[in-house]
Amino acid sequence: MPTPSMIAGRPPIRLTRGVPAVESFPIAQLSECAQVALAEHGPTVLQYGPARGFQPLRGLIAAEHGVSDTAVLLGHGSLLLQDFCARALLGPGKLAYVEEPSYDRAVTVLRRVGAQVAGIPLQSDGPDVELLERRLRQGERPTLFYIIPDFQNPSGTLLSLAKRQRIVALAAEYDFWIIEDAPYRKLRYRRTDLPTLFQLSPERVFAMSSYSKLISPGLRVGYVVIPEPHVGQLVQMAEATYINASYLNQAIVYQFIQNGWLEPNIASLKALYAPRLDAMLAALDEQMADLASWVRPDGGFFIGMTLNKPIAVEALLAEARNAGLELTDGRGFFANGGGDAFVRLPFCALTPAEIHEGVRRLAGVIRELQS
Amino acid sequence: MPTPSMIAGRPPIRLTRGVPAVESFPIAQLSECAQVALAEHGPTVLQYGPARGFQPLRGLIAAEHGVSDTAVLLGHGSLLLQDFCARALLGPGKLAYVEEPSYDRAVTVLRRVGAQVAGIPLQSDGPDVELLERRLRQGERPTLFYIIPDFQNPSGTLLSLAKRQRIVALAAEYDFWIIEDAPYRKLRYRRTDLPTLFQLSPERVFAMSSYSKLISPGLRVGYVVIPEPHVGQLVQMAEATYINASYLNQAIVYQFIQNGWLEPNIASLKALYAPRLDAMLAALDEQMADLASWVRPDGGFFIGMTLNKPIAVEALLAEARNAGLELTDGRGFFANGGGDAFVRLPFCALTPAEIHEGVRRLAGVIRELQS
Repeated sequence: MPTPSMIAGRPPIRLTRGVPAVESFPIAQLSECAQVALAEHGPTVLQYGPARGFQPLRGLIAAEHGVSDTAVLLGHGSLLLQDFCARALLGPGKLAYVEEPSYDRAVTVLRRVGAQVAGIPLQSDGPDVELLERRLRQGERPTLFYIIPDFQNPSGTLLSLAKRQRIVALAAEYDFWIIEDAPYRKLRYRRTDLPTLFQLSPERVFAMSSYSKLISPGLRVGYVVIPEPHVGQLVQMAEATYINASYLNQAIVYQFIQNGWLEPNIASLKALYAPRLDAMLAALDEQMADLASWVRPDGGFFIGMTLNKPIAVEALLAEARNAGLELTDGRGFFANGGGDAFVRLPFCALTPAEIHEGVRRLAGVIRELQS
Repeated sequence: MPTPSMIAGRPPIRLTRGVPAVESFPIAQLSECAQVALAEHGPTVLQYGPARGFQPLRGLIAAEHGVSDTAVLLGHGSLLLQDFCARALLGPGKLAYVEEPSYDRAVTVLRRVGAQVAGIPLQSDGPDVELLERRLRQGERPTLFYIIPDFQNPSGTLLSLAKRQRIVALAAEYDFWIIEDAPYRKLRYRRTDLPTLFQLSPERVFAMSSYSKLISPGLRVGYVVIPEPHVGQLVQMAEATYINASYLNQAIVYQFIQNGWLEPNIASLKALYAPRLDAMLAALDEQMADLASWVRPDGGFFIGMTLNKPIAVEALLAEARNAGLELTDGRGFFANGGGDAFVRLPFCALTPAEIHEGVRRLAGVIRELQS
């Protein structure tokens, strides 16, 4: 039976899904890793264990970050680790800054503990640091600033080196923590990496990432490198909440890395996703030049687009659905409200043909609604 | 190097560990299940999915409980599901009842959201329902009552049928929810099951359990059957907190059950654990008759023992350590304070020889401290 958004037999094109391409999952390799993990570490990975997580994987992450493995907390995905940070650091009466727009689920997690969450508007090279500094000078000092510096969700923006340096300097001067969420960083299709916020200021930054975008989300293996003063508190929060995350899944990731499969896997993800980014940019150039402006990212999962004239979101979503297109409500990404003119365009889980057709449909809907 | 609690080359006997025996883990079977789960459901189990969890496993649990599979929420262990219940139902100004003693981590989870948590003292057949009713009549109505009816943690107590019926009747009369936590229920070594609270009153009971004690804790697969009015809220809480728990692990459990391996696995757990329970009871009869009283459970992981004369807990733990014995601080199980005279004795992860030696050491320590 056709779904409501399936028109004339065409399945809808889902521009909602910030997920990896299923065809990218290394199923056979993961099966082998699971067998080895169980054969070599069965009694450990099937039992309860310390909340920090499977030590061999913590060791690899610690080495990559130049920290002790006791500073690494593996978790059940990185969103839940963010929840632990929120519960540990925030609460009613506390202030958190996020980029605006930012990852909607992270904003929810911060807000859910009763904190005030305020957005610092994003520019093409990262948050408006002049505004940030003005606020800080006025005494609006946050407990933390949640930032996705590399190929930001939902905008695709890359935080410039100058702004990275400025933000860590402000964090030191005004004494706030930075949560750096970097799940897309290693999915860079062009040009070279900038230093992470963590590299610039390891003592102030919670460095968070996961293997969801690099291997598979189904493993639910994320991690955070924790600044020393908060290690005990966060590990204790994890233990009190779920005892420990699955060592089995952590050992599968460890085995995948030990087998030398992570780098080739990232290379094939880039080979799969780069043409999809190019297809999205080409389609936008072709269809949207007079309707909107957008970021031109060098990596990641998303292009954030801003319509030249806002459209009532309900009408946009409904008309898109009628045209066989699923869109995410852009307002969820805006902590201070607004977002009517914002459209997040994920490109990794769609083929170039679907991307072209999706953008064509979207342009048609926008034109019609603006006419 | 010897650890502080390793005396004269003897490793300490750990009476702290409420964990399954590692030798019970069906490693080879789980490896096969992982392969089949990945081969048959790879794209599904490696991708993000709806927060409710892997449908085939939800289907089995729903059938067992006689509910729709939409009422079943699979989660990353059942403690985190309890956290979801606490966050959804409780908060500052709300009251929760627990048995006293109760599972220390559950008490923490309830208290952490700002709720008042009060203990209803346990008797040999379950909580003191006269006291409960008196409190209810006085207007001390809780939002929920957290109960472990079968082989309770930490006491080993079985809730009698009469009290089960009385508690669900009181829940209806005074309009509160029951969270029934039943991880040990299927580990009954003698006699026959009583009806669950859920069976007596499905509309008022959150029925919670997990595969941690029946297959392996490392899988972190728990579940809750949710009363209809709260389904949406809890599923939404799970999604907002971690998007979804690992479908891979849920599919491994599903495959294990589909292969017909769960019942034989439970049978071999019983064959392993029943003699350990017997050894613990025999050792207590032999060593502790004049020092303490204890529950004689027909299943589960624990025997709760109450000393005839309380001993300062710090002294008990320290002297036990000197005698090569690790004990849990009994006070953590008591929501209203107290617990100085309470000792939890887990027996599943120790051999009969370790159990005899552990109880012998413990009796020696108690005698010395009371002399």
